Amino acid sequence: MSTPGLENDVTEKFKGAFRHHPAGVALVTGIAPDGPVGLTLSSVASVSADPAVLVFSVTRATGSAGGILAAPSALVHFLVAGQEPIADAFARTGQPRFTAEQGFQTLPTGEPFLPSARIAVRGTIRETHPVGPSALVLLDVLDVLEGTPGAPLLYVDRHYDSLVSSAAAVEVPRG
Amino acid sequence: MSTPGLENDVTEKFKGAFRHHPAGVALVTGIAPDGPVGLTLSSVASVSADPAVLVFSVTRATGSAGGILAAPSALVHFLVAGQEPIADAFARTGQPRFTAEQGFQTLPTGEPFLPSARIAVRGTIRETHPVGPSALVLLDVLDVLEGTPGAPLLYVDRHYDSLVSSAAAVEVPRG
Repeated sequence: MSTPGLENDVTEKFKGAFRHHPAGVALVTGIAPDGPVGLTLSSVASVSADPAVLVFSVTRATGSAGGILAAPSALVHFLVAGQEPIADAFARTGQPRFTAEQGFQTLPTGEPFLPSARIAVRGTIRETHPVGPSALVLLDVLDVLEGTPGAPLLYVDRHYDSLVSSAAAVEVPRG
Repeated sequence: MSTPGLENDVTEKFKGAFRHHPAGVALVTGIAPDGPVGLTLSSVASVSADPAVLVFSVTRATGSAGGILAAPSALVHFLVAGQEPIADAFARTGQPRFTAEQGFQTLPTGEPFLPSARIAVRGTIRETHPVGPSALVLLDVLDVLEGTPGAPLLYVDRHYDSLVSSAAAVEVPRG
């Protein structure tokens, strides 16, 4: 997709602009034909509340993204401080996933559910739109599952962080 | 779009799930046929770096959203701590916009540019996708403009906040 000069320059500047743009961290899971799949996301946003629709993007080349796109439904978990190891395991290839220690349960509908996440939103894919090497995914929300309260996990400047403000007097597990 | 019972229940639970999902705050501006327009966004995400494409969503009913969708180009600013009044002015109707105090400049290409923002990404609309009362907007990025360094502004749980971590040793203006 690259052309030399200006185009690459825009790509690098664009990456730099987003490096410091903070994003809540989410984990999407599903049950694909080959088994459970999961992927860490920093691009989840609400598009519409009625109908309830959310959006995220994935890099199409990865196996996990293919699995999520092929799964009949998806479960988007909002992660909390203390879940950095899980976020990391599902962000990089070759990390252990769905281990006993991570504490996933299986919903009656088949998706891996992480009850230690703050909350999870279950839905079916409404539309996908390819954009270069990525795909934008719109999810029609069917249900919302309560998890465990915690300080929202953030990703910014290539590290995980969390927000502890006076307005959110939440105990933040460290470690 | 509402039906009684389950649907509304999902809508309320969905709003609750996103209430605590932190998001970086951005301001999109453009020059519409009727003059400059701007809108505060908490849904900006990178979709692809090469080609450089970002996504955000707007509520189609508002005049500002219509202006952005009609403008030949758009400028997405990433806001910093201290810019809460500007974020607020462009998030609600009836607030003063593009005042001398807010410090906008006009780019040679016509868009209002806020040099006090951390950085701004200029582009043209690649695609829009209606989703219920909203529209998802994909922006093809043409250029990136440096602004003024600062701690990224966040929106979470109905208030603005900023992240001051050990990794981001940035002086945070308050007030």
